[in-house]
Amino acid sequence: MYTLGIDYGTNSVRALLVHCADGAEVGSCVVNYPSGQQGILLDSKDHHLARQHPGDYLFGLEKSVKGALAQAKKVKGFSAAAVVGIGVDTTGSSPIPVDKHNVPLALNKKWAKNLAAQCWLWKDHTSWREAAKITELAAAHRPQFIAKCGNTYSSEWWWSKLWHCRNVAPKVFEAAYSWVELCDWVPAVLAGVTDPLQVKRGVCAAGHKAMYCAEWGGLPDKEFLALLDPALADLRDRLYTEAHDARTAAGELCPEWAKKLGLPAGIPIAIGEFDVHYGAIGCGVNEGTLVKVIGTSTCDCGVVSAKKSVPDIPGICGIVKGAILPEFYGIEAGQSAVGDIFKWWVEVVCQGDGATHGKLGAEVAGQKPGQSGLLALDWNNGNRTILVDQRLTGLLLGQTLHTTQAEVYRALIEATAFGARAIIERIREYGVPIDRIVCAGGIARKDPMLMQIYADVTGCTMLVAGSSQACALGSAVSAAVLAGAHKDFPTAQRKMTRLEKKQYRPIAKNQKVYDQLYALYRQLHDSFGGLNKSADLGPVMKQLLTIKDAQN
Amino acid sequence: MYTLGIDYGTNSVRALLVHCADGAEVGSCVVNYPSGQQGILLDSKDHHLARQHPGDYLFGLEKSVKGALAQAKKVKGFSAAAVVGIGVDTTGSSPIPVDKHNVPLALNKKWAKNLAAQCWLWKDHTSWREAAKITELAAAHRPQFIAKCGNTYSSEWWWSKLWHCRNVAPKVFEAAYSWVELCDWVPAVLAGVTDPLQVKRGVCAAGHKAMYCAEWGGLPDKEFLALLDPALADLRDRLYTEAHDARTAAGELCPEWAKKLGLPAGIPIAIGEFDVHYGAIGCGVNEGTLVKVIGTSTCDCGVVSAKKSVPDIPGICGIVKGAILPEFYGIEAGQSAVGDIFKWWVEVVCQGDGATHGKLGAEVAGQKPGQSGLLALDWNNGNRTILVDQRLTGLLLGQTLHTTQAEVYRALIEATAFGARAIIERIREYGVPIDRIVCAGGIARKDPMLMQIYADVTGCTMLVAGSSQACALGSAVSAAVLAGAHKDFPTAQRKMTRLEKKQYRPIAKNQKVYDQLYALYRQLHDSFGGLNKSADLGPVMKQLLTIKDAQN
Repeated sequence: MYTLGIDYGTNSVRALLVHCADGAEVGSCVVNYPSGQQGILLDSKDHHLARQHPGDYLFGLEKSVKGALAQAKKVKGFSAAAVVGIGVDTTGSSPIPVDKHNVPLALNKKWAKNLAAQCWLWKDHTSWREAAKITELAAAHRPQFIAKCGNTYSSEWWWSKLWHCRNVAPKVFEAAYSWVELCDWVPAVLAGVTDPLQVKRGVCAAGHKAMYCAEWGGLPDKEFLALLDPALADLRDRLYTEAHDARTAAGELCPEWAKKLGLPAGIPIAIGEFDVHYGAIGCGVNEGTLVKVIGTSTCDCGVVSAKKSVPDIPGICGIVKGAILPEFYGIEAGQSAVGDIFKWWVEVVCQGDGATHGKLGAEVAGQKPGQSGLLALDWNNGNRTILVDQRLTGLLLGQTLHTTQAEVYRALIEATAFGARAIIERIREYGVPIDRIVCAGGIARKDPMLMQIYADVTGCTMLVAGSSQACALGSAVSAAVLAGAHKDFPTAQRKMTRLEKKQYRPIAKNQKVYDQLYALYRQLHDSFGGLNKSADLGPVMKQLLTIKDAQN
Repeated sequence: MYTLGIDYGTNSVRALLVHCADGAEVGSCVVNYPSGQQGILLDSKDHHLARQHPGDYLFGLEKSVKGALAQAKKVKGFSAAAVVGIGVDTTGSSPIPVDKHNVPLALNKKWAKNLAAQCWLWKDHTSWREAAKITELAAAHRPQFIAKCGNTYSSEWWWSKLWHCRNVAPKVFEAAYSWVELCDWVPAVLAGVTDPLQVKRGVCAAGHKAMYCAEWGGLPDKEFLALLDPALADLRDRLYTEAHDARTAAGELCPEWAKKLGLPAGIPIAIGEFDVHYGAIGCGVNEGTLVKVIGTSTCDCGVVSAKKSVPDIPGICGIVKGAILPEFYGIEAGQSAVGDIFKWWVEVVCQGDGATHGKLGAEVAGQKPGQSGLLALDWNNGNRTILVDQRLTGLLLGQTLHTTQAEVYRALIEATAFGARAIIERIREYGVPIDRIVCAGGIARKDPMLMQIYADVTGCTMLVAGSSQACALGSAVSAAVLAGAHKDFPTAQRKMTRLEKKQYRPIAKNQKVYDQLYALYRQLHDSFGGLNKSADLGPVMKQLLTIKDAQN
């Protein structure tokens, strides 16, 4: 028996065929989204804007699955008829405005070129004003709504985006019969669901991003939504009343798509989850494990048994029952840009390419912690956790007339590591244990220098997921449990997932320097992040020079 | 009648032959220093270190003067015999350890490769610890000494450097019979002075950098110097008791150098001054004029009649009678790096060349104030005025994932303009009028985009000196007055100096944006500079984004 995991990332989609018995990956295929800039529709006048063309998802779906199947067919014993289930994960919150037939408006000629009619990609921050207003209104009227997402509602999330669309593109908003999260929309397409009200919605997206919670009867009540805009209250009736965890199927593969993909019709489709949530499963998440999926941005996931109570944790952007594993709370945190910051430095500023990443990386590996005198904040794309503030920007401090490209590159890597440490410390503060950290994503696998810096900065041993496609693997695991190939998730994870042998352990000497640098990072973080309104930053540059002098 | 001005810059020396009647430049020649990196001896382990080989000064002297003469000989009516005087200006404080015969130790094989035996270039900051200690000791025991230099003694100055040499290279210190400022040493060489005690010292260097003042009997007293190190107290006897303004000659051209250069022996040599001080004369400085010589770093000079009393101005690094023009107080301020910061960005970080400066400059010209959301501090080489603190470093804030090379380039230009505004405001606060600003230096002449930004940021009309070699011209003016070609400095300046027709007037719309950005700059400046110990910087990034949004 095999299952298929489909993982929609920021720039591409990958399909992965997995053997349910041992997790062997028998076929995979990555397809880049054809539209925009690396798959993203941008607006040169507004760096907050990031959209995606829904047609790219369908194009990539067919092409990636066929590619994976073509590869798997060369493997002895594999047959497409032995594929017993499909799981899908995507970025999010990435809501799509759809018509009455669950067809995205952007697939209609009338709206095809309208940026507001596209999928609103997770990293779109155009709705920062609406997010701030939702935070304010919820704090005043429904504090429980935001207590579960760190007390700050984000511009990356569902309601901010829908409301912003209503404000800036009212015609698109009116034309939309409903809105569907990308992670719910793709399974619905595969299942042939042509009515948005019949789309099975996952609690992962609903709970984390749309303020859905069984405690208060599902989505936010109409009265509250009317405070935002009466049109949002009206829309509530055309959304959903119930959201599901991974015990419920999103549907069964419809004949049309079965034929298109060359898979058996009727096989179950797992409920959609966000990429990192299924990724956490693919990394073997359990209580005490923090999974970090390090990519363009970073998502951190953990689980706590639903038998216990989990406190609301300030700045942690989601604590949702069933969001990752059924019967566990899923905890989500993250950093708005990680790989994207390195990419910006190397490709936009240094005008380099892939080879430049390697060249600078080699130089960085020869530098000692604290040696450059530099310190950076990792906020080029805002701060998702623990400040939950998209209206923050990057900062670099400590430059001399001799500061090199590679020194800045290292400072930016360190900045993301400091950001990671701030998240770990915050989660632990509230009694959620973190005994081990498992990393997934391209950077974790390909950049030992970065992994060592993360170990040294956080003081934690960094483990690496065995699969290079942990998110797609997690989707395949979910499909395998749903299809009955394993009796439950722990069993499926034990059989189907593994870790790399290579581990990164903290080096005491480096930790000591990074403890000093982290203290300075927190001074900048707390001051520019608004936590400390009477900061004394006069000594910061001098302390960095003192640390620098000590390394040279 | 003609005079010769010789200007020793950071990377090269230039000689300029000028017609005394009308300031016509009949011959000039620039010679790069052959040693080190662009003439500077560096230490890769310590970015504070910057030395120069004294042999380069002699090499450059002969070659540049001969080059200028060769050019002038093609001009009708010119004859070397009609050269009636020589003026010399140099960087400073750039002290040179010399032996009993006024020969730099570095010209002795034994010391040739010892970095401590070279000329300690103005921008050498290795002695920052000693500078801080001198500030502390003077504040406790001789507050008057530092009241005239902004209450902070700098690592760029004479006593810090000598004391640091004593601390880190005691053998060099012992071998040095005396120390001579570069601006005093070159005239002494031309005059054939072979005893350091006979070298005529200029009050410009002495007053600004060596805490010399007639009020307290010349150099700091031995008791005070002994608090630093008894060896410095001993050295005082081998330095000088009197320093002179431009009414006194440094000597007369000795036969040996007359022959070597092909000039008449016995012509007077003007007292040495720092480059920008003679540069101010070459720019037509008078009461109400601020002269900015914009180069690798920037020096600002003004004069106030010695008949008035001038208050001590905090952070202004020198108020010295006779430092520029006789019978006027000379006021000196400056920025530790300006062109050097642009050079760092374009050449070190962006790995570009001269063409890149042009390319980025063109992009910058197309940007609007505030459009990038960036804000920088101009402290890559510390802050000379108004904080007088070399232990400060650069800062860049507001980066997104889309920030470009050209946007940063503009932010760095703006940062230097904000630094310039801080100086102007400080000087005016203490009642010294600034009615016009005259700029000199390559950047002022070649970069209209930068000049417009300076006008918009400071709110002042920016004028440009007519000579591309204002410092050398000022030296020639001083020589002309000394030789009796003109009766006094005002007359000589009127005849021999001029301004460009092109003026840069502030554009009201830009000024408005820059007023907002300057307020934010001052928040960062005052916080990281230690003036404000309880800063609320939380709003800074958001305000930058608001300004940015308003421009787009």
